[in-house]
Amino acid sequence: MCELLGMSANVPTDICFSFSGLLLRGGKTGPHSDGWGIVFYEGKGFRTFKDPAPSCDSSIAEWVQNYPIKSCSVISHIRKANRGEVSLVNTHPFTREIWGRYWSYAHNGQLSDYAHLNTGHFKPVGETDSEKVFCWLLHEIAQHYPEQPDDMKEIFQFIASRCDTLRHKGVFNMLFSDGEYVMAYCSNNLYWITRKAPFGKASLIDDDITIDFHKETQPTDLVTLIATAPLTHNEIWHKMQPGEYCVFHLGKAFITNCENLE
Amino acid sequence: MCELLGMSANVPTDICFSFSGLLLRGGKTGPHSDGWGIVFYEGKGFRTFKDPAPSCDSSIAEWVQNYPIKSCSVISHIRKANRGEVSLVNTHPFTREIWGRYWSYAHNGQLSDYAHLNTGHFKPVGETDSEKVFCWLLHEIAQHYPEQPDDMKEIFQFIASRCDTLRHKGVFNMLFSDGEYVMAYCSNNLYWITRKAPFGKASLIDDDITIDFHKETQPTDLVTLIATAPLTHNEIWHKMQPGEYCVFHLGKAFITNCENLE
Repeated sequence: MCELLGMSANVPTDICFSFSGLLLRGGKTGPHSDGWGIVFYEGKGFRTFKDPAPSCDSSIAEWVQNYPIKSCSVISHIRKANRGEVSLVNTHPFTREIWGRYWSYAHNGQLSDYAHLNTGHFKPVGETDSEKVFCWLLHEIAQHYPEQPDDMKEIFQFIASRCDTLRHKGVFNMLFSDGEYVMAYCSNNLYWITRKAPFGKASLIDDDITIDFHKETQPTDLVTLIATAPLTHNEIWHKMQPGEYCVFHLGKAFITNCENLE
Repeated sequence: MCELLGMSANVPTDICFSFSGLLLRGGKTGPHSDGWGIVFYEGKGFRTFKDPAPSCDSSIAEWVQNYPIKSCSVISHIRKANRGEVSLVNTHPFTREIWGRYWSYAHNGQLSDYAHLNTGHFKPVGETDSEKVFCWLLHEIAQHYPEQPDDMKEIFQFIASRCDTLRHKGVFNMLFSDGEYVMAYCSNNLYWITRKAPFGKASLIDDDITIDFHKETQPTDLVTLIATAPLTHNEIWHKMQPGEYCVFHLGKAFITNCENLE
């Protein structure tokens, strides 16, 4: 299995603190040593850093960790390979274009009975179940919405309905973003937290690091994190239930079927 | 205008030396200060580093320059914006998938009369003429070859014919790669050089750096570089003529219409 980390914020925010915690699980405090990747959006553009090497001793990971790239939408993943060999091509997140927007995706879980899914002109490049179903999702979206609809809520409801199908094929926790919205879909393990004023202190579970967000933020900042397992031990992370999804926009819930958010 | 740099090699080779020379032209020895980008292939996977900041003082560029990422196929670009604002989304190279392979592309030049070109389902995300015609090229390829043909020579001849069309719309120097092949198409400025045994010394034009390739290579190594302008002053770079193209495979010419290569 793998671990996911996502962020949606109303101001460009660096994810260094949380990413540091995640990276340690990539071979040190956790077994996810088969690669890692992170996508930072900047407007409609994005940067991806990825490496099939364990994140805990990847030189690129170290650079990314120490260089505060600020973004409103981030998706990250550390990998414990199950389907598909350990290689760059199989490393999440994956990014493709629809409607002139770049969509990025990372998956935690394992699926069966997915080989027959039609991916249309979105052909997988690697061998993972994750990339294959990403291509299927994109094909489904592009088939049903050849043009981008005005109502983005409709789109995410549609994506959630397709995620429901995938959840019944195994474990399917997912992060999905076009740089403006960050969608989290839960199959079994996914937590989120929104940090806002009054900001307090937080300590990483995986390292002896504490941050005082009060000193790092403005009172209007709104930052939501989504993770496979809580990254800090003195904050309350909300556990999502199987089949729940939430789409965040600038740190705020945009559409959800989570009971505790509606 | 911009500058291009490409590499095709028969063993994973680092491009640090040549890339160092190119980066200096991004705001120091050259005016190309509107961003830079580089794609390194690793099997069917790839890594992209890009930044809208001038390459001569980009922290990521510095990291890439000092960290010897080894690859058989590399495409790089430094930008002097003409069409499209200075932003990450407009920074080359661009990468999209056809036939389950990632194709990367970078362009030097400026085009007119391109707005009507049909890009099908390959929608540009940014505002550059370069990305628009990349999408058009991909659409043309995908329309004519819904499946990957066995004969890759045919494909590159087809791409070259479409490049001929673009060359008549302005200046169109281009690098194009699927990770296995690296294609160079010349509109006005493009040079190549193949380094092979017996290896000698080379000195950068843009900096006081000399490398002795004899110490860095094996006798069987074959490394071809393609650049907008020669990067070293004590080697012979071959100038391509308008309308000439050459596709390199593992450092060696695979198909070309260049007179001095056939």
